[in-house]
Amino acid sequence: MLEASILLIGDELLAGEVQDQNGFFFAEELAKEGFRTREIRVLPDDVESILEAVRALLSRSALLVMCGGLGPTSDDLTTEAVAKALGRQLRLDEAQWERIRSLFRTFRGEDPPPGNEKQALIPEGAEVLNNSLGTAPGYVTEEGSCVVAVFPGPPRENRPMLRSELLPWLERRFSARDRRETRVFRVFGLAESEVGHRLRHVEKDYPGVRVGYQFHFPEILVKLRGSSDEKDLLDSASQALTAALGSSMYARGEERLPAVLGRRLAEAGLKIVTAESCTGGLAGKLLTDTPGSSAWMEAGFVAYSNEAKERLLGVPGDLIRAHGAVSEPVALAMLSGALERCSAHVGLSITGIAGPEGGTAEKPVGTVCIAWGMRGRLSAHTYRFAWDREYNRLASAWAAMHRLYGELAEG
Amino acid sequence: MLEASILLIGDELLAGEVQDQNGFFFAEELAKEGFRTREIRVLPDDVESILEAVRALLSRSALLVMCGGLGPTSDDLTTEAVAKALGRQLRLDEAQWERIRSLFRTFRGEDPPPGNEKQALIPEGAEVLNNSLGTAPGYVTEEGSCVVAVFPGPPRENRPMLRSELLPWLERRFSARDRRETRVFRVFGLAESEVGHRLRHVEKDYPGVRVGYQFHFPEILVKLRGSSDEKDLLDSASQALTAALGSSMYARGEERLPAVLGRRLAEAGLKIVTAESCTGGLAGKLLTDTPGSSAWMEAGFVAYSNEAKERLLGVPGDLIRAHGAVSEPVALAMLSGALERCSAHVGLSITGIAGPEGGTAEKPVGTVCIAWGMRGRLSAHTYRFAWDREYNRLASAWAAMHRLYGELAEG
Repeated sequence: MLEASILLIGDELLAGEVQDQNGFFFAEELAKEGFRTREIRVLPDDVESILEAVRALLSRSALLVMCGGLGPTSDDLTTEAVAKALGRQLRLDEAQWERIRSLFRTFRGEDPPPGNEKQALIPEGAEVLNNSLGTAPGYVTEEGSCVVAVFPGPPRENRPMLRSELLPWLERRFSARDRRETRVFRVFGLAESEVGHRLRHVEKDYPGVRVGYQFHFPEILVKLRGSSDEKDLLDSASQALTAALGSSMYARGEERLPAVLGRRLAEAGLKIVTAESCTGGLAGKLLTDTPGSSAWMEAGFVAYSNEAKERLLGVPGDLIRAHGAVSEPVALAMLSGALERCSAHVGLSITGIAGPEGGTAEKPVGTVCIAWGMRGRLSAHTYRFAWDREYNRLASAWAAMHRLYGELAEG
Repeated sequence: MLEASILLIGDELLAGEVQDQNGFFFAEELAKEGFRTREIRVLPDDVESILEAVRALLSRSALLVMCGGLGPTSDDLTTEAVAKALGRQLRLDEAQWERIRSLFRTFRGEDPPPGNEKQALIPEGAEVLNNSLGTAPGYVTEEGSCVVAVFPGPPRENRPMLRSELLPWLERRFSARDRRETRVFRVFGLAESEVGHRLRHVEKDYPGVRVGYQFHFPEILVKLRGSSDEKDLLDSASQALTAALGSSMYARGEERLPAVLGRRLAEAGLKIVTAESCTGGLAGKLLTDTPGSSAWMEAGFVAYSNEAKERLLGVPGDLIRAHGAVSEPVALAMLSGALERCSAHVGLSITGIAGPEGGTAEKPVGTVCIAWGMRGRLSAHTYRFAWDREYNRLASAWAAMHRLYGELAEG
């Protein structure tokens, strides 16, 4: 396998202010392409440190990927260090500079401030990697037997750049590689240790296949990896894994639950309404994250106060007084009120105590009542989550979507 | 400031199978204790690689923290490499070995398998760092002017060990440390390059103060860092920075705009309602992220379809037909409808084209109409954002909150 190194640059990554999102992602993508990452280094925005690391890693890598430090401010020094390490001059890429100026004129109505042309400086001999979501382009060049590829730090900029710019370039440069295939299985509602326990025999039973786990709250991603040349082996391991996980495995591939539910709704010609209390709009936000969500999203209500539950959704005040705002009867009344007030066919409702305050002995923080279903056929369930406010809210929204998804699957 | 380096060891971290959780955490904890992390390296379970890195980092660090590779299996090689790098023999720590055997007997009912005594091997001269949640102890020792501390990889084991074992040790070893202070300024509505341009003189004018930028979409965090012993210098630099940024700097400290707006509303005794179309509930979600948000959040409407705009908010169908759903008149009608339908005092509304589809020549993707204000005093504005769907939605919600915040500030 060809060996790669990754260099991540930014004071903020070393100050414990920002958690790096690039090392793991690039290592994983490069592994798929047949590159084994030998080392990842995180360095400060400091020319000497970068220079030294580039020199050290050049000689031992077929590919050196660098991320970060391409911004317009004085602490962005990556390109200066790369040019020094490679003994190259910098040239102003006129096309990139024109692109940056035109971006500024379009969106700000003015020319960029002095300093911004720095982002259009590229070492001599390097080819531009286009950045369609930000001002800083990346670049790639060869030095000795090493390919050096430099990306801006923001993941939302460099991830598409890796896929659409660098990978095709590597494809041309390195012909024969042992490609790895990764299959992703998405699991919701099981503890990580339970998932590991259920899958403990897979690696032994299917030698050559590796099982990886990634906890991407509130779901767990199980990843099967193997050589692209052994598809039968991967197929058999996939079947064993699917059988072991049962209905907790709600989908395969890249699409997360909100998008999977949305697609199922669209296929069935159904529109959804949300009625939220403690999640404050989060379920609606998740359901509309996906492009084209107008095919399934009709409307939503955020009934945060008790008065809003009565006025927006017609929940009887007596019901709230009798059972409390966090109760299955109120969740059911919120949902039927929402379904009556718009033309949606199905819906979900959430009322709970997200925390950290507001819990009682009977209803501690994390108690969440959820209702879901279609007109005339509603169900409810009470959960006890035990995370912090953010995770309790996310788990609530996902649990409601997962319930509705399960019901639609049953038919 | 004392300089630290962090070495993370594990093949799985480089294969893109497991995302490292230690680098960020240790860097953050060490920064609080007055250690500046100069470098983080991620290395494979390979004696030569670890040996080389330990030697390189020893000479340039006051503290070298290592995590991972202390397990009982053949690929756990960290202690062997450390002993080689320091030129020390390994000794069996009898107390630790007895502890490991007793753990096995308690939880497995049997003696540990051969190989497990490896976890009780410690380099000569090192002191044990007790691990109360796993079998592998850590250890700390001094070599030349560097303190070397070695931890097991699992965060749930090494985090308590850092706090209860290493930090007290460091407290005794390093008496006078230069603790650093960081001041955070939050900016919304300016390009990063413009922020950098306005602050280009600060580091020169206030030597010893460092200015860092962190783009935490959709805002920019400016961080002033300096010695805690030079508060006057930090105060002066803060004043210069505040003057240069003007009203774009909406707050200082950790609180983001939704929380800052919420607190202002609560102080004024005002409750808010949201009326959202393209953001689908995101503004409501953001306003309720903060604990205690029932003090300012009353209700919200997600009127995603045109029919929902009419039925939920009473927007006249003629108005939508005349101006289009994405228009300032419709944004204003959505907001007044929302204010009429609940007891909130102020509100905001958002209707736009988040993308990637749905744009026209006249109203391209990213066109967003926002209304804000209190009953009887509403304003509206049209934005043209140019990011992707996710960022267009975030920018829309933030712009609406920022407008309302500005109006409440005025008066």
